[in-house]
Amino acid sequence: MGKVSFKPGTMIYPLPAVMVSCGENEGEYNITTVAWTGTVCSDPPMCYISLRKDRHSHQIISRTRQFVINLTTEQLAAATDWCGVKSGRDFNKFESMGLTAVKAPDVNAPMIGESPLNIECEVVEIKELGSHDMFLSRVVGVLAEESLMKEDNGLFDLESAGLMAYSHGKYYSLGRRLGFFGFSVQKKKRK
Amino acid sequence: MGKVSFKPGTMIYPLPAVMVSCGENEGEYNITTVAWTGTVCSDPPMCYISLRKDRHSHQIISRTRQFVINLTTEQLAAATDWCGVKSGRDFNKFESMGLTAVKAPDVNAPMIGESPLNIECEVVEIKELGSHDMFLSRVVGVLAEESLMKEDNGLFDLESAGLMAYSHGKYYSLGRRLGFFGFSVQKKKRK
Repeated sequence: MGKVSFKPGTMIYPLPAVMVSCGENEGEYNITTVAWTGTVCSDPPMCYISLRKDRHSHQIISRTRQFVINLTTEQLAAATDWCGVKSGRDFNKFESMGLTAVKAPDVNAPMIGESPLNIECEVVEIKELGSHDMFLSRVVGVLAEESLMKEDNGLFDLESAGLMAYSHGKYYSLGRRLGFFGFSVQKKKRK
Repeated sequence: MGKVSFKPGTMIYPLPAVMVSCGENEGEYNITTVAWTGTVCSDPPMCYISLRKDRHSHQIISRTRQFVINLTTEQLAAATDWCGVKSGRDFNKFESMGLTAVKAPDVNAPMIGESPLNIECEVVEIKELGSHDMFLSRVVGVLAEESLMKEDNGLFDLESAGLMAYSHGKYYSLGRRLGFFGFSVQKKKRK
């Protein structure tokens, strides 16, 4: 358990690498990729994304105050990476990546059709922190891929979506299931 | 790409499931597990954890305003789950789980020796959001398992730590590496 000291840094991993879609009309539709995202409150459901000020999407979302978080999968790995490297000032990212823009029902922004789960968000506060501004947001709607809804029990089978994780500069599939919430205190069934 | 609508909820996944350690002295040392955590700014390095008001650790951190985020691994899956289910009011969690409390060098809190990476945090603001309060924090130090530091190139080999992800109520190992940041625009090497 010997430890070495690093300079303070951003080392919380693994994280999601989500595609954030925004824009008021088709000509403005854009996608950016962020790992600085997460849930901050369960009730009401609230989340955040943090964006650098010079990002094209920062300008758009600062004005529209609405966006969609699109979860990403192994199949979307290359598109996810590309949308995080290139700028919407230079490319129509939906067209370049062959992604389908679907108007979100509850916010003024597009969703990515190929994503298994779309989270509609409304900004409640923009906090300037330094390199990044945090867009603290309310979740106002969730759209999910129909085929992941299990008919037999009505549960949502997110596992089958093949979500992708991001850790220290690399993308990974999810691997072996290690347990479920509460497994460490589950009573053993008598035989 | 048919979509079904859910009620708004907390569906950003996969997330880390980190053990948060806190307490001013050994008698008070406690551990809680949170998935509502992430990075909010790169420079200065800032992160957050969100805690329910009734959590024992909420009381401690509200007073000390310092804590440590301990990354979790496949080996720590059961301890991670247990620390999220049980309360520090009823158990000494370090002792119960056989975890080693190591005084953090830069904050008034213990770190978990068995974690591959410990992130020392200082609270800058507590935001009341509803079910959860968000502890917006500065990263003031990072300690890493010595054996993960590669002698040949000085890089930190986080991949070998075997980090664990949390997604929709289940814990997973990380699986196949899908690419690295920027892989979608990497120039092919000529043969």
